[in-house]
Amino acid sequence: MPIQVTVWGENVHEQTSAVVQEVYPKGMHTCIADTLQEDPEITTRTATLQEFEHGLTEEVLASTDVLTWWGHAAHGQVEDAIVDRVQARVLEGMGLLVLHSGHYSKIFRRLLGTTCSLTWREAGELERVWVCNPGHPIAQGLGRYFEVPQSEMYGEPFQVPPPEEMVFSSWFQGGETFRSGLTYKRGNGKIFYFSPGHETYPIYHQPEIQLVLRNAVKWACPEGGKWEDGYTRKATPPVEAITERGPKLHAPGTEGLR
Amino acid sequence: MPIQVTVWGENVHEQTSAVVQEVYPKGMHTCIADTLQEDPEITTRTATLQEFEHGLTEEVLASTDVLTWWGHAAHGQVEDAIVDRVQARVLEGMGLLVLHSGHYSKIFRRLLGTTCSLTWREAGELERVWVCNPGHPIAQGLGRYFEVPQSEMYGEPFQVPPPEEMVFSSWFQGGETFRSGLTYKRGNGKIFYFSPGHETYPIYHQPEIQLVLRNAVKWACPEGGKWEDGYTRKATPPVEAITERGPKLHAPGTEGLR
Amino acid sequence: MPIQVTVWGENVHEQTSAVVQEVYPKGMHTCIADTLQEDPEITTRTATLQEFEHGLTEEVLASTDVLTWWGHAAHGQVEDAIVDRVQARVLEGMGLLVLHSGHYSKIFRRLLGTTCSLTWREAGELERVWVCNPGHPIAQGLGRYFEVPQSEMYGEPFQVPPPEEMVFSSWFQGGETFRSGLTYKRGNGKIFYFSPGHETYPIYHQPEIQLVLRNAVKWACPEGGKWEDGYTRKATPPVEAITERGPKLHAPGTEGLR
Amino acid sequence: MPIQVTVWGENVHEQTSAVVQEVYPKGMHTCIADTLQEDPEITTRTATLQEFEHGLTEEVLASTDVLTWWGHAAHGQVEDAIVDRVQARVLEGMGLLVLHSGHYSKIFRRLLGTTCSLTWREAGELERVWVCNPGHPIAQGLGRYFEVPQSEMYGEPFQVPPPEEMVFSSWFQGGETFRSGLTYKRGNGKIFYFSPGHETYPIYHQPEIQLVLRNAVKWACPEGGKWEDGYTRKATPPVEAITERGPKLHAPGTEGLR
Repeated sequence: MPIQVTVWGENVHEQTSAVVQEVYPKGMHTCIADTLQEDPEITTRTATLQEFEHGLTEEVLASTDVLTWWGHAAHGQVEDAIVDRVQARVLEGMGLLVLHSGHYSKIFRRLLGTTCSLTWREAGELERVWVCNPGHPIAQGLGRYFEVPQSEMYGEPFQVPPPEEMVFSSWFQGGETFRSGLTYKRGNGKIFYFSPGHETYPIYHQPEIQLVLRNAVKWACPEGGKWEDGYTRKATPPVEAITERGPKLHAPGTEGLR
Repeated sequence: MPIQVTVWGENVHEQTSAVVQEVYPKGMHTCIADTLQEDPEITTRTATLQEFEHGLTEEVLASTDVLTWWGHAAHGQVEDAIVDRVQARVLEGMGLLVLHSGHYSKIFRRLLGTTCSLTWREAGELERVWVCNPGHPIAQGLGRYFEVPQSEMYGEPFQVPPPEEMVFSSWFQGGETFRSGLTYKRGNGKIFYFSPGHETYPIYHQPEIQLVLRNAVKWACPEGGKWEDGYTRKATPPVEAITERGPKLHAPGTEGLR
Repeated sequence: MPIQVTVWGENVHEQTSAVVQEVYPKGMHTCIADTLQEDPEITTRTATLQEFEHGLTEEVLASTDVLTWWGHAAHGQVEDAIVDRVQARVLEGMGLLVLHSGHYSKIFRRLLGTTCSLTWREAGELERVWVCNPGHPIAQGLGRYFEVPQSEMYGEPFQVPPPEEMVFSSWFQGGETFRSGLTYKRGNGKIFYFSPGHETYPIYHQPEIQLVLRNAVKWACPEGGKWEDGYTRKATPPVEAITERGPKLHAPGTEGLR
Repeated sequence: MPIQVTVWGENVHEQTSAVVQEVYPKGMHTCIADTLQEDPEITTRTATLQEFEHGLTEEVLASTDVLTWWGHAAHGQVEDAIVDRVQARVLEGMGLLVLHSGHYSKIFRRLLGTTCSLTWREAGELERVWVCNPGHPIAQGLGRYFEVPQSEMYGEPFQVPPPEEMVFSSWFQGGETFRSGLTYKRGNGKIFYFSPGHETYPIYHQPEIQLVLRNAVKWACPEGGKWEDGYTRKATPPVEAITERGPKLHAPGTEGLR
């Protein structure tokens, strides 16, 4: 069974910016999906902000192994109910790749609990991405580092909680560094944040970037079962014999407060 | 300068349940504040759901070193704007103690990014709280364990991200275990979750529990500076001399997209 | 290609204790290897303390995907040179399962950096093992908990660093709790500590325990490449053009101090 | 009571290298101690490799709140028994600052469990140290970054376990990045690794570096009690009444195997 990836794209700048249209004539989401699809173990579909429920219906998410997320101009237009749904699926076990300006997306901030703020500069400068763990699955095939010839600078301080592992660290020509590849696990879902990917440069056309995305999809693929949440609403009977004592708030068999 | 603690109480069951009124005639928040106030290094005030802005105005939060949070029946009535405000202050550096059923509070789920779900049983059974690190500041003065004679069972699976440290682990007469004392850091704020504290039992009258709360306030007190977020909106000038290249989305001097 | 597991057994009590001989007539290592071997994706061999280089030659380790470690009476007899070798392979990417009294083994303390001390009692009491993340690969097929009818109590405080994840938490009839299943990653190697397994009880004959071991082998199997260490000895040439300045300790081309 | 710091120096290059003698005529350890001593909350003494027990007797360590460690040429000459002693004190609660080439010291590798390998270049190039959490106690008073005009490059991959927090990240003129300030906790001891400090450059004379060292001493100061290990050797009596069952390895009252 191939890994089912849903590539989510905000798809706004592709409609409004001639520069972005030229770099990604079919949209960034299509470019990313095409790249992933080159791997025979991966099958993809796309979803965009403008679709019904942003293309992320219950059915789509239920059949998604890994979701990739790129957004920049319209984070606020993503409906909270859809963010709730995506969060629930990540906690159950769906993998999530958050790309570039997705650091400010509702779903990333929701899962991490911090502002995810950083410093930035759009100057087309060189970014050199160093591998911090050469044995990590996401870094396979890359060598010690690779370069993005024109990149947007993202710099420290990056307000995120401590990651499970830091896979990449970036050096910028203008003098900054950035934690450019971070892994997390929330509930049973594996999360990877990868910062290169500014829309005015052809970054997703670059082979090393494409390799990272394919590696990351395989790394984030669910490996266990689901963490389902439903059985916790009602009181749990004891395993050991006990005599119930004392006053109660909850009538027998009722659901807990939430 | 004493540590300024704001003790937040939902203050609902104190109004509606004769049992809770009998155990906490002045409200749980007053009981907790009185306990903390016994320590000369701590000064307290209370705030409740029913007050203007739930008692958590900008002024109150700006002058709070550590906030304690107890809620159960009315998590949904806490306004999102106030949750935003509390979250921002925690990320800046304010300490936060989340107590008992506060595991389902908006602020705790916001900061941790998971459901914080667990299993439970209201049977007045014995809970034995073990110390996992006898040298931890929060565990000073406790011995190897202490017992809560009548407690609500909280059990695994507890859906939270990996903590910085597990300070307490609980054994229940009915056969379960629970990670009952967990520390986190988010942004620059120290967070402690402590599970004992069901409102129908006199748990906050118990000396060991009171000692944990006083220890935890001192542990969570801000120790560095603030992590302020404002300077990240505009582009950062380079430190090294670079020649700007390539197309741009952002006109010079404009704010970044968010 | 099946996963190649090397099952290491101290094999001392099997020679000296009639009780242990009766429970594990072919040795604990053989019992564990037979159990793992039932899975068609796994192939096993055994190694013991008494063999040349404790059975852990360069060749054996180089071809091992996952090593399991059980020792109790003779931790001090394991030669430091072999511990160095096992550590190096774990850091490169070999998985490691540390079982029961292996918490005091040289290799576990070496990798974790703490005493790994705990409290204990050999009283044949009931241990109930709770699943903390029902979606974790190691917990698949188990239900909410399982019981070990006769177990040695291991209790808190357990002096280990914060784990990547706590998979199991144990409840003991005598009143204690224990963090009985913990995951770590060191270098590129995945490590799982699993506490049930006292040698005077038939614990490794129990289906749930056997399932955990098989699940854990699959979880710990190397998933990326090797983290090789050799290229760091000599100075690294710069990527950017720089002019070397200032005094030097190291003559050009010499190895760094270590 | 001031914080008692013991500044440990290997003190080898100071005896053998004219360059180092010129930069640190009284030894690097004396320079570091003098710097710390400027803070009225700190009192210092020094200890060196050449002294009896490397200057780290039981008495010295028992009265040390924070130990700083600088070594480079003679890591192998530090006796294992002294490393054991330092490790034990850190686990009990003593703070530890590991400086520069101390990344390869026995004590750092012992506490972290990995090789602590990295890449390096001695070319006197510029290092720019970025603050990753502007609110962290160790970063107070620094601004967004500071520069070390001439530094030895330390680069990724740096083989260490995930830190509690990454406080600093360094940019090098030659094109690399490095995780230059990392915090850990092991047992009850707080550990800070800080990479700038090559002996042929006047780095410990630089005000920003001196500020980091003073901040780090205060951060690493023990804040709780000791984690003592002695009580775990004998079997622990049960808290709940149980009937002991089954065969035993251990005669009543004997110590556990270790």
